[in-house]
Amino acid sequence: MNDTDALGELRDQLRGFAEERDWRQFHAPKNLASALSVEAAELLEHFQWLGEGASRCLTAKQLAPVREEIADVLIYLIRLADELGIDLAQAARDKIEINARKYPVEKSRGSIRKYTDL
Amino acid sequence: MNDTDALGELRDQLRGFAEERDWRQFHAPKNLASALSVEAAELLEHFQWLGEGASRCLTAKQLAPVREEIADVLIYLIRLADELGIDLAQAARDKIEINARKYPVEKSRGSIRKYTDL
Amino acid sequence: MNDTDALGELRDQLRGFAEERDWRQFHAPKNLASALSVEAAELLEHFQWLGEGASRCLTAKQLAPVREEIADVLIYLIRLADELGIDLAQAARDKIEINARKYPVEKSRGSIRKYTDL
Amino acid sequence: MNDTDALGELRDQLRGFAEERDWRQFHAPKNLASALSVEAAELLEHFQWLGEGASRCLTAKQLAPVREEIADVLIYLIRLADELGIDLAQAARDKIEINARKYPVEKSRGSIRKYTDL
Repeated sequence: MNDTDALGELRDQLRGFAEERDWRQFHAPKNLASALSVEAAELLEHFQWLGEGASRCLTAKQLAPVREEIADVLIYLIRLADELGIDLAQAARDKIEINARKYPVEKSRGSIRKYTDL
Repeated sequence: MNDTDALGELRDQLRGFAEERDWRQFHAPKNLASALSVEAAELLEHFQWLGEGASRCLTAKQLAPVREEIADVLIYLIRLADELGIDLAQAARDKIEINARKYPVEKSRGSIRKYTDL
Repeated sequence: MNDTDALGELRDQLRGFAEERDWRQFHAPKNLASALSVEAAELLEHFQWLGEGASRCLTAKQLAPVREEIADVLIYLIRLADELGIDLAQAARDKIEINARKYPVEKSRGSIRKYTDL
Repeated sequence: MNDTDALGELRDQLRGFAEERDWRQFHAPKNLASALSVEAAELLEHFQWLGEGASRCLTAKQLAPVREEIADVLIYLIRLADELGIDLAQAARDKIEINARKYPVEKSRGSIRKYTDL
């Protein structure tokens, strides 16, 4: 990461936010993982009765709260990774490499089957 | 964002990954929001029977799969934001501003109550 | 409830199962609520890439694991209600009454909007 | 099941509720599984910042909304099982038998490890 990195900036800002409010006592990874799961479900709630097609073309009115829920998920994910000492971007890069091996292009093209069923 | 931005790089890489495999047909926001929720729960599973204290000091053996699940959450979050045309970092910055107004330092110090109960 | 009630029987059986294994020490409502959420997500996983239509006509091979996940959700829900001293069937009856007031037939027919938007 | 069975009664009542409102068109199993997951997370939200000990002794004020969320989870679970033609109580009984084999008393007493790690 470098000084211009958005994830690093957000991490520092969110840690400061929690410290100013004396919230790190509540931010046990167990609790943050729960909060993250709750936010992911609040995001899902906006899509639960929509068809797939409709979910691809949200109106501006539908998109605004979805954007806020997406932000909440990222915020808790950054806090959780920070409390666990995990470099979020590097973890994603490593996982993409693993996925590339699990899902070789020629075997997985056009199919969403789990790698264990390929 | 600029060229060195980790989130922007990951977004492009993940879009390419999906396109190579012809997976964008499956990546309706409704489906990605489900997948994100599923990954968040798989992350939570590692903490469900742990005490809060134990969750703060994971062993290396416990941390490794947690790091992978965290990566999976970020990966689906980036894909979802990309399909919806949302700038993830900017959405988080905007939400932090909202949160700073909802949770003023003096009112929320040491208390994790919802802003509606402050 | 009476002696032939399935929910009451399952509740007693599951409490015995936990006690025999000395598991009630782990069954704090906080932990059971996490486990319930994790099982609900494992159930959702089976549907995440399916279209709505396909989800209405699962093959026998698809249905079998779905049935097991549904059972897991019920099992944790019964355990959680038991630890909290909640009568599950009565709670559902009470909630159906609330929902009937929130969603009057004439206003909500054919529309899945939240009652706050009716 | 027999005539006095609570689960069977609730199933019939909830199917009628959906039919009166012409909601079965929205009740694809994919959508119901999402809604179930969302309700399970709303339940979890009440516990996310609580310690385990506090979660074992909820106040009456804390318990009331938890009871409603638990009811919501059961309601969607019953609807989902009904749409899939699954007998909920029998599915749970079958799963308890499977669990009894996976977690023999002597091996799992006092330990919450997954059966794959026993």
